[in-house]
Amino acid sequence: MTTLRFALAQIDTCVGALDANAAKVLDYCRKAAAGNAQVVVFPEMTLTGYPIEDLALRRTFRQAAWDKANELAASLGSEGLGSLYVVVGTVGTDRATAKPRNRLVVLHEGVVWAGYDKHFLPNYGVFDEFRIFAAGDRSMVLDVDGARLGVAICEDIWQDGGPVAELAGQHIDTLVTINGSPYEEGKTNTRLELARRRAAEVNAPLIYVNQVGGQDDLVFDGGSFVVDADGVLLERSPMFMENLTFWDFDTEAAHQQPAPITPELDPDEEVYTACVLGLKDYMAKNGFTGVTLGLSGGIDSALVAAMAADAVGGENVWGISMPSMYSSDGSKDDAADLAANIGAHYDVQPIEPLFNAFQGQLDLGGVAAENLQARIRGVIVMAYSNSKGLLAVATGNKSELACGYSTIYGDAVGGYAPIKDLLKTRVWEISRWRNKAAADGMGIGGLKIVGNEEGQSGKPLPGGVMIPVASIEKAPSAELRPGQKDSDSLPEYELLDRVLAAYIEHAHGRADLLADGFDEKTVDTVMRLVDRAEWKRRQYPLGPKVTALAFGRDRRLPVTSASRE
Amino acid sequence: MTTLRFALAQIDTCVGALDANAAKVLDYCRKAAAGNAQVVVFPEMTLTGYPIEDLALRRTFRQAAWDKANELAASLGSEGLGSLYVVVGTVGTDRATAKPRNRLVVLHEGVVWAGYDKHFLPNYGVFDEFRIFAAGDRSMVLDVDGARLGVAICEDIWQDGGPVAELAGQHIDTLVTINGSPYEEGKTNTRLELARRRAAEVNAPLIYVNQVGGQDDLVFDGGSFVVDADGVLLERSPMFMENLTFWDFDTEAAHQQPAPITPELDPDEEVYTACVLGLKDYMAKNGFTGVTLGLSGGIDSALVAAMAADAVGGENVWGISMPSMYSSDGSKDDAADLAANIGAHYDVQPIEPLFNAFQGQLDLGGVAAENLQARIRGVIVMAYSNSKGLLAVATGNKSELACGYSTIYGDAVGGYAPIKDLLKTRVWEISRWRNKAAADGMGIGGLKIVGNEEGQSGKPLPGGVMIPVASIEKAPSAELRPGQKDSDSLPEYELLDRVLAAYIEHAHGRADLLADGFDEKTVDTVMRLVDRAEWKRRQYPLGPKVTALAFGRDRRLPVTSASRE
Repeated sequence: MTTLRFALAQIDTCVGALDANAAKVLDYCRKAAAGNAQVVVFPEMTLTGYPIEDLALRRTFRQAAWDKANELAASLGSEGLGSLYVVVGTVGTDRATAKPRNRLVVLHEGVVWAGYDKHFLPNYGVFDEFRIFAAGDRSMVLDVDGARLGVAICEDIWQDGGPVAELAGQHIDTLVTINGSPYEEGKTNTRLELARRRAAEVNAPLIYVNQVGGQDDLVFDGGSFVVDADGVLLERSPMFMENLTFWDFDTEAAHQQPAPITPELDPDEEVYTACVLGLKDYMAKNGFTGVTLGLSGGIDSALVAAMAADAVGGENVWGISMPSMYSSDGSKDDAADLAANIGAHYDVQPIEPLFNAFQGQLDLGGVAAENLQARIRGVIVMAYSNSKGLLAVATGNKSELACGYSTIYGDAVGGYAPIKDLLKTRVWEISRWRNKAAADGMGIGGLKIVGNEEGQSGKPLPGGVMIPVASIEKAPSAELRPGQKDSDSLPEYELLDRVLAAYIEHAHGRADLLADGFDEKTVDTVMRLVDRAEWKRRQYPLGPKVTALAFGRDRRLPVTSASRE
Repeated sequence: MTTLRFALAQIDTCVGALDANAAKVLDYCRKAAAGNAQVVVFPEMTLTGYPIEDLALRRTFRQAAWDKANELAASLGSEGLGSLYVVVGTVGTDRATAKPRNRLVVLHEGVVWAGYDKHFLPNYGVFDEFRIFAAGDRSMVLDVDGARLGVAICEDIWQDGGPVAELAGQHIDTLVTINGSPYEEGKTNTRLELARRRAAEVNAPLIYVNQVGGQDDLVFDGGSFVVDADGVLLERSPMFMENLTFWDFDTEAAHQQPAPITPELDPDEEVYTACVLGLKDYMAKNGFTGVTLGLSGGIDSALVAAMAADAVGGENVWGISMPSMYSSDGSKDDAADLAANIGAHYDVQPIEPLFNAFQGQLDLGGVAAENLQARIRGVIVMAYSNSKGLLAVATGNKSELACGYSTIYGDAVGGYAPIKDLLKTRVWEISRWRNKAAADGMGIGGLKIVGNEEGQSGKPLPGGVMIPVASIEKAPSAELRPGQKDSDSLPEYELLDRVLAAYIEHAHGRADLLADGFDEKTVDTVMRLVDRAEWKRRQYPLGPKVTALAFGRDRRLPVTSASRE
């Protein structure tokens, strides 16, 4: 019997941080060697980080990445780790066209050993790879102590044909894939089913190592795994955590032995955790240690504050209550309760005197006067951000952003919008899940994510409750005029969110929406709101575009489309 | 002798406006028929507008475009114009993949007659076509009364091989190309040289019809032309104007007779006109009739106000002077003079009382206090925008935006930024050109652009001067603290702009910049400023992204790039 030991190194890289990424690879290789691994597999574009977008187009950056790969191979060799086969991703250059390539290399015996370039360059949704890279055109089989390892990079297994089809006839023993696959709700199962098909196609186990961590407006969930040619799941790494798992491949066995299989997460926990990791990593990678936000007493700002506390600790959150003449006592109490629950700094900055000062000069009415209140709050949030070096986070949810129910330069102010891709009904569900987790003992920072120790329960919550129940249960209101309710301007959220999902995420047109069973008045209202909001976002292209979850990149529509359909 | 009369219909379309675009095509066909044309050639994606981006992905929109093409063909037929060959662009659908296609169709005898799909889908700079469209794979030759017309769409002539190479062997009489080619400085000559090569390749005259007008953040300059196989320019339409020119092709002559050739514009006039048309069309297509902006007395806001007056008339411009305790008397006078010169509405809104009201609560110092002043001004500009229904225009230039020398939610407020792609030194040059034109008699609105009568000289300027000379000649200052000068924070603009051009537009790296002869200190300062500004723009993705000129789309770099090179 011959056994080949693989180490699946699911790590969190940072775009552009060649030194830090290489140091992390070296560290994981030491651990892999200590566990007697022969092959260590890292995620897509390990050394450069992913997605690197136009950074790939800089010749000097590509040269630096190449130098770093060689330096890393030499370091492995000089540390006595040269016998390892280290599979890492990086950026290469196509000699003919001088265009960048999305490349897999193997570090072995002190040198950069073999190269494979990604064939299929995704160019849809959040991906723009065809724009940046030249495509590879050759498959590669690696001989490791007599075992034949095929390789592929991410999208290469999502498309029929190409390198996997080429490998199908080549009697490989294992298909090693390196991935930078962003999180989407429900994607775990999609990936697994896909991998089962490819494993069957090449008649060999498939190793799927995925990146983990937040990068810009994407979250990578990890969840690496191994699946056998007959579809049996042989290993699954945790989501949202860095991880090193060993899996032994027996070259002579008909059926492989399984390694640890991490159970799936509850869907609400999964989404909440993705949002928190996105924010935490965004802050870490951009040098922020604290956040500031307005606390209105409503559910959106309460959930975002809770996420911020879970990401960086309540002591690093500055909540600002900015009541106006229209703010209810209940709202003020709810904001104060939330801040106390999460242990945040809490300041009260009334806006009425400032509002009156502006109105003395401007004498605004209607929506202009409503926007003025929101913009004064935006100025205050940015004053905290500037004077204390805090990241301002925007608290808008997907329903209100889709319908334009927010003020540009007002409540839309912020550098990161943790719940931008959560519909309002999802905001309520996720909030209830967090309170349930708190009741079950999960304190602040108790999530299993990159940077947290596994199994910690977090700092205790004062009353065992995270988000005030009143914030979840009361009718949503912007409180910009007396008695205002969201439902004055929008359909009820239960209905609105179903229409939004169909119109935005499934691109249903008007006729499709009517066939879906929605009534004509609702359909026309929602379409008008969404189209107008989209136009306004482009007109003032200044709403929060940075988003925690990539449930789908914003639809890219032109500004002027007088008669779309 | 057989003569085929072509009409080059250089029109300004609007994305999504199927009805309006079709009506304009019908109108130009009537004029073309009245002039005895047999073939009428319109720009790329005539019916849908261009660029339509993700709108093409909507099945219902593609169906509506198809219906509109058929309706238009029927209308032409029923008006007795059926014998015309009308070459228009639209969106099609690839039957196999259901993906959209960038399509040329010929309307003739009441029906949609022939179809050709664009082969080369540009996917660089401002273009994202490969992301959206499926590529065509067949060339097409049209027989018109015995003459063989090859066709191509825009990028098809910019790439070697493909449909033009196929047509080279097919003895065509004329190559008809329909284009949506955005304006860039110096592009007129580039296009002509390219067309000369292609005309020689197919050994026939090439007809180049280009779109004109502003669309979202692009400006199309028109400048359609005909060039012979031996490189002789046979026709050139004006830039920045809608136009219909006739050109006769003699099927038996060795050399063709020329049609009118419009002289080239002065380079400064060209850029100024492009900026004004971009703003004018952006407003027209988005339903704005007036603009508002802060007038500081500095050159940037003065130039933008002058452009706005030329676009929509001074009576539709609301200039707001917002002096602080740091504003000089000279600045206040210059702002008032500018407003008087262009006949704009002019209000003074001192910010000191508002600043003091905020400071009573917040007590900010340093940059936070400077930003507070700029943000109070942003709130005021938006109050004018909201209460009067005006487009807020941002006045930042490319040098300061590149270096991050502006305040997010402050002076960066606005839905459109007319001079975003002009370096500061260019701002001065263009301003001097406009004053010279004023001295030569060009009043407000005297530019030759879409919507202006050709040759009009505009409304008289009170003193014959547009932009106060002091605004051009004084040392630039943000006036956010006593005695502040731009040169406290930035290299002198003459040097800065040369480094920016090399670093941003030519993508020179550090080593390249040193080889260019720039000193190390300047290079490091500028690189640090630009990289930090770019990171801030992504962090607060809220600076003006809508730009008049597409000298190059903003570099797309990831936010976190800890050690780029």
